[in-house]
Amino acid sequence: MKKRIDPGTYACPAPTWCVGTYDTDGKANIMTIAWGGICCSVPPHLTISIRKVTHTYKALIHRKCYTVSIPSVKHLQEADYFGMVSGKNIDKFATSGLTAKRSEVVDAPYVEEFPLIFECEVRHILEIGGHVQFVGEILGIKADEKVLNSKGLPAIDKVNPFVYAPTSREYWSLKDVAGKGFSSGQTLIKSSSENQA
Amino acid sequence: MKKRIDPGTYACPAPTWCVGTYDTDGKANIMTIAWGGICCSVPPHLTISIRKVTHTYKALIHRKCYTVSIPSVKHLQEADYFGMVSGKNIDKFATSGLTAKRSEVVDAPYVEEFPLIFECEVRHILEIGGHVQFVGEILGIKADEKVLNSKGLPAIDKVNPFVYAPTSREYWSLKDVAGKGFSSGQTLIKSSSENQA
Repeated sequence: MKKRIDPGTYACPAPTWCVGTYDTDGKANIMTIAWGGICCSVPPHLTISIRKVTHTYKALIHRKCYTVSIPSVKHLQEADYFGMVSGKNIDKFATSGLTAKRSEVVDAPYVEEFPLIFECEVRHILEIGGHVQFVGEILGIKADEKVLNSKGLPAIDKVNPFVYAPTSREYWSLKDVAGKGFSSGQTLIKSSSENQA
Repeated sequence: MKKRIDPGTYACPAPTWCVGTYDTDGKANIMTIAWGGICCSVPPHLTISIRKVTHTYKALIHRKCYTVSIPSVKHLQEADYFGMVSGKNIDKFATSGLTAKRSEVVDAPYVEEFPLIFECEVRHILEIGGHVQFVGEILGIKADEKVLNSKGLPAIDKVNPFVYAPTSREYWSLKDVAGKGFSSGQTLIKSSSENQA
């Protein structure tokens, strides 16, 4: 018997990602979000949800471009800070000591010190409620060489990202492989075939 | 200097969530996804992306309702299985031995054995590319009592969810608190005020 809880944003795990934009004056801004994710494989798209009151919202409407810089645990403090203050009157890059680098793919800056970057162009804007969802096509990805696996793709343990736990407002680090995808469930497929035989 | 990588769905961490629906015949079905997340706080909404070829897609179009059951590491094998086979000709609940329970809030079933359940009604359908995004309002949440914290909300360490690592197709478990949200960044706010003084 389960206990009922009032509706809320308690789904876990949520990502901790930093959205980079240029504002209407051309100033680089960066904002941390937890409401976002991959939303299409082909072509690859990534969605972020942003409140209208934010400085990032105005920039997104104006430029129709953004980056997502994924922080390692190493930069947790800066990532948290990026979500605490508005970029309207503050240069968050300057304050944090991190570097705003201009993407050569989209009209947006990213965090040079973060290991994995997605460069997106807005394809859809959806007003949901307090948040507006921006769906961007991923036009470019860049990563530090040291976080790549043998296939040249980013390895999660080397990127060392962290997840956001909405109910406790904590960031959680990753431990290790709990299972292989498209493999752990194989036993149940076999037992299913036997049952049907 | 970063290395450029061709666009792909390499953003991490991604969730591992199981989407429950009733198909057009009323049969309970369940499908695992990694493309989804919270997309609005007020009112709370949760989005999932689904390919048109899936059995779940047809059910979603027909019923306009779904649940998201969040598996613990304990049920990783079943969750992986739910993403490997189609519910068109197979009763995945029966094969896995898990229980399809009818939600009393929306027209969809959930996995009784999983600790945390979200009950959603579709508010928007957005065709992006190979995936179609369903944006659902969270109308109900239910959780096992044993995963609740002292405030009666689900605690991430008790839910014990796992994340999906797209480039290695692995599921990763969570380790521990790496930092406090809206707190770790406080030092940078102070130093910013001092700099402006």
